[in-house]
Formats: sequence, structure tokens, C-alpha cells
Amino acid sequence: MLPPKSEFSDWYHEVIQQAEIMDIRYPVKGLYVWLPFGFKLRQLVYSKLREILDRDHDEVYFPTLIPEELLMKESEHIRGFEDEVYWITHGGLEPLDVKLALRPTSETAIYPMFKLWVRSHADLPLRVYQIVNVFRYETKHTRPLIRLREVTSFKEAHTAHRNYEEAEKQVLNAIKLYKEFYDFLAIPYMIFRRPEWDKFPGADYTIAFDTIMPDGRTLQIGTVHHLADNFAKTFDIKYETPNGDHAYVHQTCYGISERCIASLISIHGDDLGLILPFDVAPVQIVIIPILYKGKEEGVIELSRKLYERLKEFRVVLDDSDERPGAKYYKWELKGVPIRFEIGPREAENNKVVVSFRDERRKFSVAFDDVTPERVVDWGRGLRERLRWKAIESVREKILICRSVEDVADAVEKRLLVLTYSCEDCEREFENYGSVLGKLEEVPEWLDVSLEGECVMCGGKGYLVGVARTY
Amino acid sequence: MLPPKSEFSDWYHEVIQQAEIMDIRYPVKGLYVWLPFGFKLRQLVYSKLREILDRDHDEVYFPTLIPEELLMKESEHIRGFEDEVYWITHGGLEPLDVKLALRPTSETAIYPMFKLWVRSHADLPLRVYQIVNVFRYETKHTRPLIRLREVTSFKEAHTAHRNYEEAEKQVLNAIKLYKEFYDFLAIPYMIFRRPEWDKFPGADYTIAFDTIMPDGRTLQIGTVHHLADNFAKTFDIKYETPNGDHAYVHQTCYGISERCIASLISIHGDDLGLILPFDVAPVQIVIIPILYKGKEEGVIELSRKLYERLKEFRVVLDDSDERPGAKYYKWELKGVPIRFEIGPREAENNKVVVSFRDERRKFSVAFDDVTPERVVDWGRGLRERLRWKAIESVREKILICRSVEDVADAVEKRLLVLTYSCEDCEREFENYGSVLGKLEEVPEWLDVSLEGECVMCGGKGYLVGVARTY
Repeated sequence: MLPPKSEFSDWYHEVIQQAEIMDIRYPVKGLYVWLPFGFKLRQLVYSKLREILDRDHDEVYFPTLIPEELLMKESEHIRGFEDEVYWITHGGLEPLDVKLALRPTSETAIYPMFKLWVRSHADLPLRVYQIVNVFRYETKHTRPLIRLREVTSFKEAHTAHRNYEEAEKQVLNAIKLYKEFYDFLAIPYMIFRRPEWDKFPGADYTIAFDTIMPDGRTLQIGTVHHLADNFAKTFDIKYETPNGDHAYVHQTCYGISERCIASLISIHGDDLGLILPFDVAPVQIVIIPILYKGKEEGVIELSRKLYERLKEFRVVLDDSDERPGAKYYKWELKGVPIRFEIGPREAENNKVVVSFRDERRKFSVAFDDVTPERVVDWGRGLRERLRWKAIESVREKILICRSVEDVADAVEKRLLVLTYSCEDCEREFENYGSVLGKLEEVPEWLDVSLEGECVMCGGKGYLVGVARTY
Repeated sequence: MLPPKSEFSDWYHEVIQQAEIMDIRYPVKGLYVWLPFGFKLRQLVYSKLREILDRDHDEVYFPTLIPEELLMKESEHIRGFEDEVYWITHGGLEPLDVKLALRPTSETAIYPMFKLWVRSHADLPLRVYQIVNVFRYETKHTRPLIRLREVTSFKEAHTAHRNYEEAEKQVLNAIKLYKEFYDFLAIPYMIFRRPEWDKFPGADYTIAFDTIMPDGRTLQIGTVHHLADNFAKTFDIKYETPNGDHAYVHQTCYGISERCIASLISIHGDDLGLILPFDVAPVQIVIIPILYKGKEEGVIELSRKLYERLKEFRVVLDDSDERPGAKYYKWELKGVPIRFEIGPREAENNKVVVSFRDERRKFSVAFDDVTPERVVDWGRGLRERLRWKAIESVREKILICRSVEDVADAVEKRLLVLTYSCEDCEREFENYGSVLGKLEEVPEWLDVSLEGECVMCGGKGYLVGVARTY
């Protein structure tokens, strides 16, 4: 049995294991094992991410090991990472000549090659991405998919452009791609421009996607960085312009980690377990024959016919010996979007009973009406319902505050606060929670103005987010 | 320009770069960058491997980092790896309490979890695999895809069974799967049982797939290990038998690394570059319009029509400004299996000129006859030709020797020697080359008996391989 979702931390811990996403018993803190079911979910989610990126990015793979000198080259960058880099000092029984870092992120591995790849303006824009494992020596509390020592599925894209403006266009393009990805997963997000003190080390500015977890804390689920020519200067990445000059490229990088799966699990799930959108569910459909002695034949026959008809989907015909109730429990836990039940009555009348994982009401449909097209429609309907349910649950955790006192109080109550601040006062809000930064755009499901009076000083302000974060 | 393939080492070094498989300029020995074209080839090859394994294995992902204590647990195993393990000793600026190894292979990471997963005979057989990066501190000469410090694409499968015999069946099953995989790639192989002194550390015995590279050295491209209950005893992996006793499981593990891609490149390629089997070619078809001033229209129209018709394949319509000769050169280098040329004469007569990458002769076909089915047939034909050409090139590098003197001489000439040895004398052959072990079965393309008189002592012998190896 799962704890109720209202006890979110326990629920999350348990659902990860019971739904067979990960085994958390690996004997090193912050390292987990992807189980077959979880691994399939990961493949399906990342296939979508690949599909979106493949339109105008090339997939590559850079080495995991970064020599000390390269990692140290960009001084701001390394200051941001020096506390959490794993260092390899020995090969076999011998100390290494050059210490090697396990990549915490790959700028310093990739950009020395960009220097070799970029010659002329015709080589730009350059857009590559990779999906790799990255490593952070986390000393804080670790949690599967959220805070780990080995992030097993970090998608990082890196691009180079002719100038600041072209790179900025790429930032907007990346934001568009990430919106498409999270819309596909039915995960609501808010887009913030991180404050100066919290931007990516080495970046000109950082845009972040945040969602709100069931306990009211925000989870950063994607970031997009404008690097300007900061790294280009460090790694000497220049190109010949059309008129023969040499100029530094301007760069962007943007990443999504397996936190996308953490949000998928946390935001859609309920007291019974996972609820997965149809397109990414490892099992999309389960067919459960309800067998009574002497009346098995017709039930089994119709179940098999249904299975054959829906074979293009990821469908399971669960004809194991367990009782129907045990089967419902098991497949609900795993978030299977569509369930069919077929008993003697259905077999007789050439009908099936359908229920959707989110609504759980049952209804009867003529067998002949259960076409693949119908199933796709049901899947689409389920995603829409999930999306609105998720928006509701996120919206009720947001409070718009017009006074400093309200901010303090609301953050304490685990709400995401939107309030107005001017640039000078923004950092003051760190006293109450983490400052997420300036809201870049108002989500369609929220009604609020981006501009207002700073609640600290009364000056001209913009909307900022303040919250407890993961 | 490529060096001729007869200068194999140089050719290999150059073709990897010029065909854009990898960038070898990453500033750490033995670490390379997968370029977009190479990465696509890798994806296509490993998709096939996944497809084959997914039939009765589950894909999982285990952590990269193994605590010292686990890695050290199996004494024979660690003796085999202690010289080449990378050790992480620091996290951030602090020394770690527990040293962590970068996995050189994952037995010691996976089997502690097997202990938790296996309870009863009903949990067996257990079959999982993962495709991961593994690390070896190589001090010898490194080479892309062949001898590396980060093997980026190690497919390792791990299974557990009720007893020795069931595990042995799995060994045979794994051999069958690997045969299917290499037949798909049109790579000839020989299957040897490695001698005792060269088996996998901790294994009961090791079966290996070897192919012969163009320079006559053998390349090990797959291994299958029967582990008996050696690891089960170390990691205490027991199950309850049907009659209530407790017994250790018997295990197997088997692996294929990106050497499969090294063999694909090396064995099929020629002086002009890669020759890729149709199914794994990142670009399967290239269409080259031959443009003459004033006669462009019909040519472009027919080229586009062909492109549209063949869109289900990975097809490129190269309408860039380069001269046709430059285009031929470029796409031949990248191993594109099928090339169409369309000039004014073809456009007029509704024909196309076809040539295959391996044969290079050109012939004319009516446009209407170029159907997707026809293309698939052509692709199949090309693979058959590649396979037989590869078999020829491997066969001419094999010499069957009936005397010790011939063995020494033949190995010196970079031939794979097959000769007869008894168990007692087998190790003696190490004086002449590497002993590959006992040939398990005679390939269909070789005519030799598995049994004969030991050429050392005249006793009852079996066929063994001796060669220079990579």
C-alpha cells in the first residue's frame, strides 16, 4: 500500500519503488538503479525530447572525463562547480599525471572542439546536443530523479552563433522547444529569468522552467542559458565574418535532466500510484478477462480479439492467475491509462467495459467501436484532463502578494509567491525564500500583470517568484 | 585523400575522421568525440542489438560508480581489473570516505541487487542488459573504437539461472543472438573457447567471437561468459528451490562493445572510404542531379520525384553547388550504399542511373521500376555481396598448419593459424602468438576438421587458433 499523496515525500519515495521505476537500495548515497519499467518510461520520454531536438540539432557524444586544466579554464564556471566535482586521481594502482573530472556538465569538454569546428560564418549556427550521465558530489539530502550524484539522463544542447542577437533568438527557440516538450507531458511550468546571483556560472543570463510539486516546493525542470561570448573568449572560439574579420561566437546552452520524469510522476500521480499520459506510458492499455468457471471460453476469445486489434499500442493482456482486484491494483499503480475488463456478460453481448486511469468510472462500449482511432482519441482526452488537473493543482499553490508580510507568510505555508519587486529590492526576498527571478511571461492559465509597484520600496517593479525549492 | 587500405593502420586512422565518425582531437589519450554521422551509425547498429535482446531481456541502467568494497569482493575478478580501474578519491575539495571506481564492467554493481531480486525459483531465469559507458585506464597504444579509456557503448547482459546446465543453455542462446547480430552486419566471425589463462576474471569459461582485421590481426568483438556459481557465492545470491531448499544461482554475462563498429568500418571499407550495409547506413541513398545550363528543370523535377518516392528510407537529395565528382567522392567516403544520378538524358527518357557503393558499375533503370521494394532488394543484395567479400578477405588470412614451424612462420606473416593441440601443449603456442583457444564450431565457409593430432606431442588434439591480436 502507498501512503496517501498528501504525505508527498513518503508517497514519492514509495511510488518510485512500488511502481518499479527505480531500485533505491544501491549501496551508495544518491545512486539508484533504473528498473525495466522505469527504464522504458525514460526511453519513451527521451524519445520525444530527441524527436523535438533532431529537427535542427545534431546528436553527438563527448567524453565523460575532463582534464583539470580544461575544467579550470573558465574561472566563474569552475567557482560554480568546484565544491561538487568528482576527481579521478588514480588509474590502476598509479596516481595520474593529470587529474580528471567526471563531467558535472560539458561546456569545458565541448568548447575546445567548437574552437576546432568553427572556422567561418558558414559554419554557424552550430547546434549539437547529447544525452549523457553527469555527476555531482551532492552533500545535501539526495532523492531519486531529483537530487542525485549520478544524473543518468542529462540532455544538454550547445550552440554557437554569429552574435549576441542570433544567440538570443536561439534562447527563444530553446524555450519554445521546451514548452512543446512539457506540454506533451502535460506538465505546467512557469518561466523565470533567474536573478544575477543564481544564474549559471559563466552565463550572461539564465532562463529557467519551474513547476510546483505537490508539497508546494518548486522544481527546476529545465534551464536555458545565454552565454554571450564569455566561453568563446576563454576557449578562443572565433570565426571569419563575411567581410574577412575575425569575431568571437556567441553561445547558448540548455539542459533538461531526469527531473522531467520526477515531475511527471509527482504531478499526475494519485493515492493509487502513477497516472501516465498515454503517449509515454510503458503499458498504454491493459485487458483484464474476468473469468468464471465454465464461462471462460467466450471471455478469453474476446480478450484475445481485442488484444490483436490493439496490437499497435503497448498493450498487455493480463491472463495471469491473480484475482481481478489484484490486477487492477497492480496496473493502477503503474499508471496504465486505459483498462478494459471483459467478463461473461461482455462476451455474450460483444461489449467491453472501459475505464481510464484518471477518472476511474467504468462504462460499456460495443466491441466493434473500440478502434485504434478511438483509443488514440481517448488517449488525447486523458492528456487534456491531466493537463487541466495539473494546472489546477499548480494554480492553487500560487499566491499573488501585495505586501512583504504576505510574502513571508505565504512562503512559510509552502506557496509559490508572485509579487512585485524592483531590481534593487529583488535580493531582499531571499530572506523569505528562494528568489526564482523575474517571470518572463504569464502562463495562459494565470491572470496577473507582469508589472506593478515594488512591494518593498514602492518603485517601478516587475513580477518575481519567491518559493521553497527542491 | 585516404591512404590506400593496404596501409591499414593509417587508413583506419584517417577514415574515422574523414568520414566523420569521430573527432580524435580531444585532449586526453584514448578519449574521442562521436560526430553526428558516427553517432547515427552507432544508434542504428545498437538499435539492432536492442531489438535482438529485447525479445527476452529487460533493459536496465545501473550506476557508473562502484564502491571499493564491492569491486574488491570477488578476488579473482579484481585481480583481472586492478591495473586498469580509474579511482575517484575526491568529491569537491574533500577526500571521499569511500573510494569509488568507475565501472570497468558491472558485475560487482549488479550482483548485489540480484541478491535482493532473486528469492524463489519463480524469479529465474533473470535476464537484464544495459548499454553504458565503461572505463579502462589503458596504458597501451589507444585507438578509436578499438582500445579506449572510455568505451562509450558497452552492451552488457547479465543473467541468473537455477543451475549450471540452465546457465549453459543461456550461453548457447547468447551465442545464437550474437551470430544473428554479426550476420546482420555481414561481419564474419570465428567462435573460440578462450584458454584457462585468458578467460574473464571470475568466469568458469569464456567463449569469444573473433574476426580478422585487414592487417591480419584478430579483433575480439564479443564475449560470453559462464560464471557458474562463482559470483553467486561471493554476493550470496540464493533462491528457494521448488522443494524448499536454498541454492546458489548460476550466472552468465556477455558483452559487445563499439568494436562492432570498428569491425564494420574496417572489414567492409575500401580505398575510397566506408562501405555500409544498407540497414545501418545513416544515409542509405543519395540522389545527385547532374545539371547543365538550360536543362536544369527536368533534372530537378525527376530528382525530387525520386526523393519523394523513396522518402521512407534515409535519403539525401544532394542539390548543393559542388561538382558531381566532388559529391561522388564525399558520399562514397561515407559509405552510402545506393547512388542515383539524374542528368538531362535521364530526365528526357524517364530513367535514372544507379550504382552500388561496393560494385561501382553504373546501370540505367526506368524511373518507374525504382520502387521501394526494388530498393530493399538492392540493399539485401549488397549485404550478401559484402558478406561474401568479407568472408573471402577473412578466409585468405587463415592458414591451417600441421607443424610447429609453420605456425611460427604464419603468425609472423600476420595470418590466423588454425592448428591442432592437446590441452597440455596449448599454452606452448603462446611463444608464437596469442592463443585464441579451442575453435567451438567450424564456420560454414571453412572446411576443416575440429579434431586432429597435436602438432607438438602427437597426442589427441583439437583445433586451436593462434594469431596476433588487437
